Amino acid sequence: MGCVLVKNNTIIGEGWHVKAGLPHAEPQALKNTQDARGATAYVTLEPCSHHGRTPPCCDALIAAGISRVVVAMQDPNPLVAGQGLKQLQAAGIEVSCGVLQHDAELLNRGFITRMTQHRPFVRSKLAMSLDWRTAMASGESKWITSAESRRDVQRLRAENSAILTGINTVLADDPALNARVDVDVEQPIRVVLDSQLKMPVTAQITALPGRCLILTCSLDNLKRQALEKAGFEIFYFDNNNGRPDLHAVMAFLADQQVNTLLIEAGATLNGALLSAQLIDEYIIYMAPVVLGDLGRGLFTLPALHSMADKKTLKLNDVRSIGPDLRLTLTPT
Amino acid sequence: MGCVLVKNNTIIGEGWHVKAGLPHAEPQALKNTQDARGATAYVTLEPCSHHGRTPPCCDALIAAGISRVVVAMQDPNPLVAGQGLKQLQAAGIEVSCGVLQHDAELLNRGFITRMTQHRPFVRSKLAMSLDWRTAMASGESKWITSAESRRDVQRLRAENSAILTGINTVLADDPALNARVDVDVEQPIRVVLDSQLKMPVTAQITALPGRCLILTCSLDNLKRQALEKAGFEIFYFDNNNGRPDLHAVMAFLADQQVNTLLIEAGATLNGALLSAQLIDEYIIYMAPVVLGDLGRGLFTLPALHSMADKKTLKLNDVRSIGPDLRLTLTPT
Repeated sequence: MGCVLVKNNTIIGEGWHVKAGLPHAEPQALKNTQDARGATAYVTLEPCSHHGRTPPCCDALIAAGISRVVVAMQDPNPLVAGQGLKQLQAAGIEVSCGVLQHDAELLNRGFITRMTQHRPFVRSKLAMSLDWRTAMASGESKWITSAESRRDVQRLRAENSAILTGINTVLADDPALNARVDVDVEQPIRVVLDSQLKMPVTAQITALPGRCLILTCSLDNLKRQALEKAGFEIFYFDNNNGRPDLHAVMAFLADQQVNTLLIEAGATLNGALLSAQLIDEYIIYMAPVVLGDLGRGLFTLPALHSMADKKTLKLNDVRSIGPDLRLTLTPT
Repeated sequence: MGCVLVKNNTIIGEGWHVKAGLPHAEPQALKNTQDARGATAYVTLEPCSHHGRTPPCCDALIAAGISRVVVAMQDPNPLVAGQGLKQLQAAGIEVSCGVLQHDAELLNRGFITRMTQHRPFVRSKLAMSLDWRTAMASGESKWITSAESRRDVQRLRAENSAILTGINTVLADDPALNARVDVDVEQPIRVVLDSQLKMPVTAQITALPGRCLILTCSLDNLKRQALEKAGFEIFYFDNNNGRPDLHAVMAFLADQQVNTLLIEAGATLNGALLSAQLIDEYIIYMAPVVLGDLGRGLFTLPALHSMADKKTLKLNDVRSIGPDLRLTLTPT
């Protein structure tokens, strides 16, 4: 969420909310401002009216003498939900709400999804050939997509609160799953579904800054202790068809303040998430290469038999990334 | 090929070459011009210097008193190949050649391919789902792509000299394979590979204006006569693995003055053309739907086993067509 303060047609302050626990956008914007009296505050989300981990933003705006607040959208958090707007109005501030609301909803969709559905907004990132293959039959997959696409993935990782993968991907590729970008970023939380605690203590994933979570169905205490010593946080889930129940996983991640979750996984986990209708957006990096029918597919899915069964998506964005295409699709 | 005449910074004539046997671009441009003396002629291809089916264009330009000719590219036809430029220069005309040559080569690539390789420029049009399927396992395929994409295909057909398909596509779909566009166009020649003369005399393909060719390995005279009576022209080819040799087919089409050939066929013929390296460009209409792994693929191809075997293409153009994407790719 962001806040811009304008006085006499000049921007006098800007702020944004970096992460849970840190100051909200409004006090950030007010922080370095000499005199905000009579200024207009433009905010992407209704200012909060309750004491959470930080003091209410409404109080800060009122105390600073702001005379007008332009709000893109109401806070979907039931603890706020219009209370902030009322409090500002009661203090004599002119309030407009719903300006560029659709854009704000897109911007805030992680937070909205967590507040309204108690789960993160879930993106699945897929890297594939033109013929929808993610690897040769042997598992060989380095590299289908270009260096440019792989750099773009780093940026995508940095934009998400957490990254989820399956233990088989870790065992096959030993990925780092960190965001390797040029700027200083909060590393996404790395989360591995590992029902039987097969994670090696030497996995690269735990050697890097940031939290590293294992979600398991195993009660093996020896393994747990070894992995905790290696830097993992272990969480137990009931076994549901051989893996933690995916809806329970999503609720757990919402409790961990994860607004946006990036899936970087193989066909099994992606197929299970798709079947559970838990994917909100697909980011597909498509390289102009053909791997042939023996290659590995994207999803393990029950068979579709007629055109009526087809799954329809909506293409929201297409972009050239080096020689590749990046498609952004949402289920319809 | 096109010709624009400019005098005193004003366009005084325009012409283009509609088809073999009709006047070339230069006499077309001169036709309605009162006085072209001193004008500059801009042409996409070197004016011809030989008597073909029409008189030489160089003579016409010289006779009209044109003082300068700007040529995008030399004629790849060995009967011209610089002779036209020399003849103009000998007549005292100022000649520039190679202006926007790359664009002209793209524009003229059908003619260039026919002149230099004695075959048409071959495009394969494919309509598929996001997961690279052209139909369900049952063959059901109406409709994967949108009405907008299907309209775009009509325009694509009108841009090509001929359309090639296989008899199995005719038997399955009874397609018209004509260009259904709002403007008056020369209908592309419809060509069917039909080794055993399985074509029904009632096929829709012959009921419409334009030539309709069957290329066969069958010597069955009764069938031949029935099909000829139904309006087909039948041509015999030696049998090569159960079908006419594809290189022989291409040479034959070049002899029929086919500059550009559009393939609208199933996986078998497309796979054979791909293996014979006879596809110059892919036009792929990709709908944002998923048909699943049981669906029919695009190509019947020998198996690819390692990343080193992968076929790499170059993405030249990507466009939104309604809800779908149209990709233009060339082999590398």
